Amino acid sequence: MRDDPYNLSKTTKNVHSRREALKYGSALLGGALFTPVIARAQTTEVTNLPPNVPEWMTFPGANVGSEPYGTPSPYEKDVVRRVVEGLDQYTSSSSRTPLQDLDGIITPNGLFYERHHGGIPQIDPQQHRLMVHGLVDNPLNFTMEDIRRFPAQSRIHFLECSGNPTYRSAMKGATAQDLFGLVSCAEWTGVPLKTVLEEVGLQAGAKWVIAEGADSAALTRSIPIEKCLDDAMLVYSQNGERLRPQQGYPVRLLVPGFEGNMNVKWLRRLHVAAEPAHSREETSKYTDLMPDGIARQFSFYMEAKSIITRPSGTQSISKGYNEITGIAWSGHGKIAHVDVSVDNGKTWQTAELQEPVFDKALTRFRLPWTWGGEPTVIMSRATDETGYVQPTFEELTAVRGVNSFYHNNTIIPWQIAENGEVSNAYSDA
Amino acid sequence: MRDDPYNLSKTTKNVHSRREALKYGSALLGGALFTPVIARAQTTEVTNLPPNVPEWMTFPGANVGSEPYGTPSPYEKDVVRRVVEGLDQYTSSSSRTPLQDLDGIITPNGLFYERHHGGIPQIDPQQHRLMVHGLVDNPLNFTMEDIRRFPAQSRIHFLECSGNPTYRSAMKGATAQDLFGLVSCAEWTGVPLKTVLEEVGLQAGAKWVIAEGADSAALTRSIPIEKCLDDAMLVYSQNGERLRPQQGYPVRLLVPGFEGNMNVKWLRRLHVAAEPAHSREETSKYTDLMPDGIARQFSFYMEAKSIITRPSGTQSISKGYNEITGIAWSGHGKIAHVDVSVDNGKTWQTAELQEPVFDKALTRFRLPWTWGGEPTVIMSRATDETGYVQPTFEELTAVRGVNSFYHNNTIIPWQIAENGEVSNAYSDA
Repeated sequence: MRDDPYNLSKTTKNVHSRREALKYGSALLGGALFTPVIARAQTTEVTNLPPNVPEWMTFPGANVGSEPYGTPSPYEKDVVRRVVEGLDQYTSSSSRTPLQDLDGIITPNGLFYERHHGGIPQIDPQQHRLMVHGLVDNPLNFTMEDIRRFPAQSRIHFLECSGNPTYRSAMKGATAQDLFGLVSCAEWTGVPLKTVLEEVGLQAGAKWVIAEGADSAALTRSIPIEKCLDDAMLVYSQNGERLRPQQGYPVRLLVPGFEGNMNVKWLRRLHVAAEPAHSREETSKYTDLMPDGIARQFSFYMEAKSIITRPSGTQSISKGYNEITGIAWSGHGKIAHVDVSVDNGKTWQTAELQEPVFDKALTRFRLPWTWGGEPTVIMSRATDETGYVQPTFEELTAVRGVNSFYHNNTIIPWQIAENGEVSNAYSDA
Repeated sequence: MRDDPYNLSKTTKNVHSRREALKYGSALLGGALFTPVIARAQTTEVTNLPPNVPEWMTFPGANVGSEPYGTPSPYEKDVVRRVVEGLDQYTSSSSRTPLQDLDGIITPNGLFYERHHGGIPQIDPQQHRLMVHGLVDNPLNFTMEDIRRFPAQSRIHFLECSGNPTYRSAMKGATAQDLFGLVSCAEWTGVPLKTVLEEVGLQAGAKWVIAEGADSAALTRSIPIEKCLDDAMLVYSQNGERLRPQQGYPVRLLVPGFEGNMNVKWLRRLHVAAEPAHSREETSKYTDLMPDGIARQFSFYMEAKSIITRPSGTQSISKGYNEITGIAWSGHGKIAHVDVSVDNGKTWQTAELQEPVFDKALTRFRLPWTWGGEPTVIMSRATDETGYVQPTFEELTAVRGVNSFYHNNTIIPWQIAENGEVSNAYSDA
């Protein structure tokens, strides 16, 4: 049969029609929950001949095992982490996840966002040690083998930089990656921090755990003991495999829902103490200057947030059916619901949340939408299980002023032009 | 402080003791559910000085963004997919996932097992088409953009080669990768196949969907219409990003729980028909020769299975506390429970299943174990939600004989020697 190929592209016609929409709506979904669905599909007059044979079917492909560790298709070469261009140095900087090109809730390890303060150290796991000391009965020094002998657990959680985005840059950026790309989500495996703290024996007065990284910045953050005994973990694996160097190989702290820099990478020390360290990252950085001139310190939680990833900035859409999809998350727990507006915030519809919805994890939302071709603005608004609602930028700055740098969880509006091109509505304004 | 480093490795002593075990057991877990836990941890006499400063803290690390698409640590270079050595060709072969080095339930895309029949084609997604024809009202030819416009969903499912392992090779192999490495698990995103079939309109008499791949083998399998209208999907993303070429880029069929080769990669055609195709892969391959000389055809389901991945072959353990962990899965639904024996099958204990337990997905199990140092054999046995119990090799071959090649879901026993070295008990026998 393949000797007589039929080139379908020469004989196609469009069947996007009202009749099809009605048929689909009634036959498949009963017309109940969703707008009828139409793919911009094309028919062919010839039904029982195979499609034309592409060149890649005419010779054997690459060998099995030609990539012992696989890589993406070369056609996806532009789906990469991106850094801000033109900085003086990149040892203390960040790279962003291409949210607009991703599906589901898992971020592949190769595209997980980065934020480092002294570059990425190359650590020999055989030489690495984790010291746990201070207000403990038995100060201990753990090898990686020690850590891996503890009873383990795996959980899916997001991680997010506190400056995702910073207030100053919130209005800039063309893509979802530019705006909110400092968030990613993975399945993490490791040991509950509580297990390790019980192993060393906490003493009376132990109120903080001061975590230090083995990078050249010796990044140091203080974690309240309550969080350490709740859901914090010592993590050595991410999405099944060992941590990448960019994510703290061979071991990092995971403090679910708290700002990214507290999830100390390349973890080498946990100092149990009565007071926080007031380290550089707790004083000159990672505080929030309020309108009254006083800075909030220890603003741990990443609050509820969402962004439409498709359609989003630099993409374009066609008239007719489009699925609006995006991600939502909250450092306070599960996402309760996500509302979407397709008329610049005048009215809102509740999106479908993709199950399962995990605690402190990216949650995928979807809403069917038929676009009639008129220019408009679309946006999403997350509400978490505590009832907290993601604010507009106006609502946020009314409370926090414009001098804050971190913890900007504003709603992101996307402008849709008459030709279907999508852009950042803030940049357009 | 770091100017006065204290080299902990020179002053360590072992604190592995009965007292510690009791303390841990009572303080942390209340002695209720688990054996007390002891890390093989080491103390230091000096408690409030930082550990010695490793070399990698003394200079800035690699730049942020130095890897736009990240890769694992060079210290993990041996954690790769492996092929059988010495074959005449590798266009029709397989590569195996290093199960013994993985944690959690997600397999990273770079380590997902491979089984190809005509090598890996390099497909331009702009040129790729999916034709849906046969017993349908509106035969259609879809572009990738068409497929991505449908309402999407993401689900976590395992995929497994029907020959994982073949009967002949079941007794060989040193590692979990050698034995059961043709199984992996991912978060898949795509369109329910049902949605696409409703779009084209199934006609009366439509009983099978014949799927054809765009590889040089034009791999072709017939799928019962009931499965196509149940949980089958057209998948374009895996673990968040677009499919890798090794996994069917730009689009593959996912038939959850059915043997791997039915999940046709590089999908180019779905022919709706009244009868199956009886293709090469349904006649000369992928049938199971029974003791009476008659071959089972269309043995779709991958039955309940499990393997201990740690400790497993070529690893070694120390006396005292060890966590036994592994993976279980079933093509018939969820794993109900996993039993573990540490005395060569004489007695069994119920392992803890890591939540959440997904339908037709890898399920991680864990059991605390204190090894006294005596030689023994450990093994796991999965039971799925239908009540089906993973058999021993003797139980399996008593029913199926020894001429079958596929669908070997035998229990895998690991021998533990007095020195703690772990090996395949079948190889040792």
